Amino acid sequence: MDAYTESLERLIEALGQLPGIGRRTAERLAFYLLEADAAEVAALEQALRDLKTKVGRCRECGALSEGPQCGICASPRRDRTRICVVEKPRDVIRLEATGGYDGLYHVLGGLLAPMDGVGPEQLSLSDLERRVTGGEVQEVILALAATAEGDGTALAVADRLAKHKVRLTRLARGLATGASLDYANPGMLADALRGRQDVEKQA
Amino acid sequence: MDAYTESLERLIEALGQLPGIGRRTAERLAFYLLEADAAEVAALEQALRDLKTKVGRCRECGALSEGPQCGICASPRRDRTRICVVEKPRDVIRLEATGGYDGLYHVLGGLLAPMDGVGPEQLSLSDLERRVTGGEVQEVILALAATAEGDGTALAVADRLAKHKVRLTRLARGLATGASLDYANPGMLADALRGRQDVEKQA
Repeated sequence: MDAYTESLERLIEALGQLPGIGRRTAERLAFYLLEADAAEVAALEQALRDLKTKVGRCRECGALSEGPQCGICASPRRDRTRICVVEKPRDVIRLEATGGYDGLYHVLGGLLAPMDGVGPEQLSLSDLERRVTGGEVQEVILALAATAEGDGTALAVADRLAKHKVRLTRLARGLATGASLDYANPGMLADALRGRQDVEKQA
Repeated sequence: MDAYTESLERLIEALGQLPGIGRRTAERLAFYLLEADAAEVAALEQALRDLKTKVGRCRECGALSEGPQCGICASPRRDRTRICVVEKPRDVIRLEATGGYDGLYHVLGGLLAPMDGVGPEQLSLSDLERRVTGGEVQEVILALAATAEGDGTALAVADRLAKHKVRLTRLARGLATGASLDYANPGMLADALRGRQDVEKQA
């Protein structure tokens, strides 16, 4: 087509690379940006530049950070006796959003996937062990996916920490909050049965 | 939340400004970009910069152009006796995509909307009249929306060109290609009836 200018075509192509954004949506976004305020486009452009230049990883826990240490590791209000082990930086954000955890984190950087060539040496297991060795940590909470890869990774962490005197726990499994039994799959129901909890009886 | 870094939060906010992109999608895109190739992010950044600095309007027809004149106006292969009048630059692209038109275009820059303060002086009607005055143009095709605003704008164009010897046509209206009568609204059916076409009978 003659009618697309080269710059516009390049923007549509770049937007179309994003996950979940097809050609049509990319066109719509590009036209929106074309007519948008220059300041709005500049803000997006600047944010993209900062993303690659400013956002790094915390040298202690591996979570996202704009300095050598993330806000959580640096905070005096966090409970340093507990470390929550997660797969990726995004999991830290999900868990923080619950407001229900005040300990530290440890980002493994993936889950074991031997078929895809991800072995224990690709994960930050040694860093985790080093942090536990300090003696301050009393509990390591495994907050990994409830999948075969998650369970395999949990085993690897347990192996690595076997010789350390630290409590190892994992997230509860069972019915998803709000779910009815009609939609629970057998694995979910089996987990829910295994993890059944006592109910206080009225006296 | 402590866990989002400032740059990431700014990117999520900037992406969330885009039409059809909510907070959740913006987060997903931001995390994708965070893990994406630096070259991919740089390409998007560069495309955004070019959009505002390089893409302008053709001084003749008002379509998008990276130079003073667009590729269509500059092309020796286009039929200069016909001008297709459209609302916005994007319409040019839609029409070019059909491959069924080889004339020139004229972008009005909007549709008449007196309630929103868009009067004839906000549209490029004078430029259109000037182009028609040259004498080379034989037909002006109105390719405007089939709405009250589109029809009102068509009337204004007709008024403006009344004293010029030029054929004035508009896009056909009727059943949308592929549509069944079940889903046609009354206006669409009425247009289809009015514009009914002769069918060749087999001898």
